[in-house]
Amino acid sequence: MRVALGERSYEIHIGPGLLDRCGELLGNLGLGKRGVIITDCNVAPLYAARVQAALRQAGVETVLLTVPAGELSKSFRQVERLIRKFPAFKLDRQSCVVALGGGVVGDLAGFVSAIYLRGLALVQIPTSLLAQVDSSVGGKTGVNLPQGKNLVGAFHQPSIVVADTEVLRTLPERELKAGFAEVIKHGVIRDARFFAWLEKNYRKALKLDPAAVAYAVRRCCEIKADVVSRDERESGLRAILNFGHTIGHGVEALSDYEGVLHGEAVSMGMCCAAWLSVRRAGLSRTDAKRIERLLRLSGLPTRIGNQFELEQLHRAIRLDKKARDGLPRFALLTRLGQTVVSSDVTDADIQEVVDVFR
Amino acid sequence: MRVALGERSYEIHIGPGLLDRCGELLGNLGLGKRGVIITDCNVAPLYAARVQAALRQAGVETVLLTVPAGELSKSFRQVERLIRKFPAFKLDRQSCVVALGGGVVGDLAGFVSAIYLRGLALVQIPTSLLAQVDSSVGGKTGVNLPQGKNLVGAFHQPSIVVADTEVLRTLPERELKAGFAEVIKHGVIRDARFFAWLEKNYRKALKLDPAAVAYAVRRCCEIKADVVSRDERESGLRAILNFGHTIGHGVEALSDYEGVLHGEAVSMGMCCAAWLSVRRAGLSRTDAKRIERLLRLSGLPTRIGNQFELEQLHRAIRLDKKARDGLPRFALLTRLGQTVVSSDVTDADIQEVVDVFR
Repeated sequence: MRVALGERSYEIHIGPGLLDRCGELLGNLGLGKRGVIITDCNVAPLYAARVQAALRQAGVETVLLTVPAGELSKSFRQVERLIRKFPAFKLDRQSCVVALGGGVVGDLAGFVSAIYLRGLALVQIPTSLLAQVDSSVGGKTGVNLPQGKNLVGAFHQPSIVVADTEVLRTLPERELKAGFAEVIKHGVIRDARFFAWLEKNYRKALKLDPAAVAYAVRRCCEIKADVVSRDERESGLRAILNFGHTIGHGVEALSDYEGVLHGEAVSMGMCCAAWLSVRRAGLSRTDAKRIERLLRLSGLPTRIGNQFELEQLHRAIRLDKKARDGLPRFALLTRLGQTVVSSDVTDADIQEVVDVFR
Repeated sequence: MRVALGERSYEIHIGPGLLDRCGELLGNLGLGKRGVIITDCNVAPLYAARVQAALRQAGVETVLLTVPAGELSKSFRQVERLIRKFPAFKLDRQSCVVALGGGVVGDLAGFVSAIYLRGLALVQIPTSLLAQVDSSVGGKTGVNLPQGKNLVGAFHQPSIVVADTEVLRTLPERELKAGFAEVIKHGVIRDARFFAWLEKNYRKALKLDPAAVAYAVRRCCEIKADVVSRDERESGLRAILNFGHTIGHGVEALSDYEGVLHGEAVSMGMCCAAWLSVRRAGLSRTDAKRIERLLRLSGLPTRIGNQFELEQLHRAIRLDKKARDGLPRFALLTRLGQTVVSSDVTDADIQEVVDVFR
């Protein structure tokens, strides 16, 4: 699969067993002989040696840098810690940074690769479902500030994405489900047929039936690649990918990125956004309920719960990056598979919806 | 003047008294109502109030953030300090960051604007000669690591550059001269006639004769804009702008960015590069001497001096960002006004030249 972005176009490879072939896949990218693999302490013992060996076979020598697992590693501190080590590796502008891990590693390593020497090639090897269907594709990189998620970052497209669907077997079940929230999102926002397929096949996919997983990952990548190709830097269409994320990010920020996974927060956010869509964009109640039902059946949370002050949550949502003049912009569904970006959502709507979904 | 970069094109305004007109100049850029002015403690008391007033008149409310003057502010620490304050200002993606100051402020504020919310509009208001003729144009932003200059950064084009040549009157003489090194560089690398004009008019320009200064700033911006338009991200031609910088950066890194100004280091570096050009690219000895002479007459240092270990300096040079496989690439002159990028310079050449110019 190819993401069409002019001179920044790149290929996405999806399938079982690709980890051992990543050296050969990188072969014709014209990269240099040195690289850095950034991974986390969960993934390192499982897959780092295999990736390093595959790259070595292709003539690329890499050093391994490991960060703690979890959202807290998406910090300025971690960026500085990593990047201060880079000069000793004698990297040059042909060198690459390999992001081996889930969304956190991809965003962090992506940002580091975007700013070192004003930009090194980035190789995404996503190992979580979330990263394979979403965060490794599209070129968004970033870290969090205490005040909000991804407030610091850069657009920096990868040179290649290698998604080995076999590695999902070692993913904890909770993370697999959290990633599945983004799978569902892709159907919801852009492809009602895919959504219907998911309603039928979610069990298979969550049990990692190879064909079902490969199909789901591929379809999500196709949808995302199509949206990103039309609007690389989020001047319009791309914002539909944020369906469920405006409120989801608020939930994450308030939980200090602990306790709730990104996909879980997005699941809560999608339920809220579906409700806002009924109210403000003409989505049918039936379809809103289908969305909530599929999330629930997939084992995802559909209620925000009581752990946050309403007022705090409201404030966190208003800090959203996509806000204009202090008003957050929401991706809303006009119907299943069709999304618009709206500034019509009022403060009262937000307060009501987060109250309803407690 | 316009820098032609497709949808990233922007205008450069040059002339006396533009500071008070910056609000009006920004008027049709479609920026939001909020902004941050980043400046340093030297410039703040002189010009911040005027800029803030001019922007307020145009409907843009700004907050002022001040950093210590000097190269040491181009640090990760400073980036983090600044950016952690941003969320409280309720900036959105239409907000702008105004860089009011010299090269340090421009590079730092430029980098901050590149990474906050994955990129805010950048308004460059350069107040040093160096920034007006060089660093504010072209979209390079960055900060230093202990191991080298600008090792971290981003390409991020400004939305507009406003160069008020009157503010150069408050610039310390040493800084004015240091900036003049970059003026001379622009003639040396790309315009022999401009170089000859400088040989005749350097006294006038350094005395800030309004017409001479305006001409020099404009000519440098034209040359730089032309080079950048042809090669925004330094895949080829743009590297000629680094004439004198490979060794210059080494000198700066070893002096820990204290004691020697960037322009002074570039002056030393240009003398070395001219000598390397005679040896490796066919520059005539006469022209190499003209370059050295103009730098000397302008009050710039033409010798590196004895403060560094040869071995250390050599190592610092090899760390250069443009190096490939550990070999630095040098911009060399085939003749005055004509520059090539060469990997032919050997370790022995470098060792010899830094020895000769001690």
